[in-house]
Amino acid sequence: MNIGIVGLGLIGGSYAKSLRKYGYKIYGIDIDQKSLDYALQHNIIDFGDKNPKDILKNVDVVFICLYPEETIKFIRKNINNFKRGAIIADVVGIKRNIIDSLDIYKDDDVEFVFTHPVAGKETSGVINSDEAIFQGANFVITPTKWNSEEAINVITILAKQMGFSSVSQISDVAHDDIIGFTSQLTHAIAISLVNSDDEKYNTSLFIGDSYKDLTRIAKINEDLWAELFIKNKDFLLKHINKFERELDILKDAINAKDFEGLKELMRSATLKRGKIK
Amino acid sequence: MNIGIVGLGLIGGSYAKSLRKYGYKIYGIDIDQKSLDYALQHNIIDFGDKNPKDILKNVDVVFICLYPEETIKFIRKNINNFKRGAIIADVVGIKRNIIDSLDIYKDDDVEFVFTHPVAGKETSGVINSDEAIFQGANFVITPTKWNSEEAINVITILAKQMGFSSVSQISDVAHDDIIGFTSQLTHAIAISLVNSDDEKYNTSLFIGDSYKDLTRIAKINEDLWAELFIKNKDFLLKHINKFERELDILKDAINAKDFEGLKELMRSATLKRGKIK
Repeated sequence: MNIGIVGLGLIGGSYAKSLRKYGYKIYGIDIDQKSLDYALQHNIIDFGDKNPKDILKNVDVVFICLYPEETIKFIRKNINNFKRGAIIADVVGIKRNIIDSLDIYKDDDVEFVFTHPVAGKETSGVINSDEAIFQGANFVITPTKWNSEEAINVITILAKQMGFSSVSQISDVAHDDIIGFTSQLTHAIAISLVNSDDEKYNTSLFIGDSYKDLTRIAKINEDLWAELFIKNKDFLLKHINKFERELDILKDAINAKDFEGLKELMRSATLKRGKIK
Repeated sequence: MNIGIVGLGLIGGSYAKSLRKYGYKIYGIDIDQKSLDYALQHNIIDFGDKNPKDILKNVDVVFICLYPEETIKFIRKNINNFKRGAIIADVVGIKRNIIDSLDIYKDDDVEFVFTHPVAGKETSGVINSDEAIFQGANFVITPTKWNSEEAINVITILAKQMGFSSVSQISDVAHDDIIGFTSQLTHAIAISLVNSDDEKYNTSLFIGDSYKDLTRIAKINEDLWAELFIKNKDFLLKHINKFERELDILKDAINAKDFEGLKELMRSATLKRGKIK
């Protein structure tokens, strides 16, 4: 099986590194010659080309590791270049928008499997790619009514080989709902927490691990995340509002010096967090 | 120099472990015989006693590693038991309340140095104590007008020996202000984030490191933290409100689909977070 990876960034590079161990031939496509050169020199890919045409007709599975809008553009532009029967998977962090944007998934010649590897780090580019980021991580597939069991199985196996510990299936709507909570809300909080620092004191001298942990993701790729926030606006706003209501309950308890009420909120959080694996 | 540690919990046990390496005789005091036995059996302390009286008259530096109210009670009860000239340091995470509660710091016979080791983890008890939690961490001293340079120096040296990378001095008011931001606000956020999970889906299957990092501290010691929240009510509420204002700015940008505005908020967060060491 030949695997194509479009976009040799952090995710694409990490996909390539983790899959090459299994003996798949890895074909890289990137508009940046430097990324291709780096990936070839470091044995991350077997072949690389700026021009997708020649590669696409040779690969059985194509992972498109681009930003949301770029993913849609790439697919539209290359819809006639894929190999007949190819499986095409994306890595976009929100699913309704991309599925709705692509009428072409009814196409007979190729099959789209929409996926979200819930993994990353605060750096970008193939130079920072690292297959370790997938170890024990979650991989989510949002099947459409046109998906075959075979294609879903192929992607599931590849995801497991990459190191993901869980590969689950959920609807695109449910995906955007829960990811709006687990991923986008957390980034919105981290950004706002850091931005609310008035820097009256030398913050670095008064932090512990809690501040470091809660703000690590405030170092954020703004082009990607502004797009994700806006495209998942409805669910993200719902979750921000829900979070603010919880914070207000806590605030009321502090304001009333309600020791028992505060302890109850803390016990509830401890219990709920304990369920998270 | 003999060092007394009152309260062999996570912090007390970690203090003992890190200081014993330097050859100090470590005297442990705890109301729980099991903790004393564990500490003795594991060579964490040299001597241990449930009764503070005999120990206190032998130790030159006493670290009181108890919760805020317990710290005040212990000092009041034992004020006549300390060795003449002893230095007494606490570990309480808020400073105005404890300093204001202790009229006795004007006492000639002993000297109080109020300190806050900004370190910890989500477990408790001497069994979980680990001197590694101090490596590279911040240690804060809030001097009073009665403090001598000598006593501050002794505590500074001991903190450095324990592994703290920064030992800084700040007023009690400023301490409670900045710690209300870096420590208490972060815990308030983590609690509310977890409590806002409606558990409609199996959250564990859809999380990445961001959710794990932002909620790690939601597993919280409710007796300690409810006390800290209430005792630092003014500053904590100020910081929650400031954070909510920032979150509202972000919400407005999402609502308006203001791509450039969102990117600007993200760039600001990236820049500010980049300054944190």
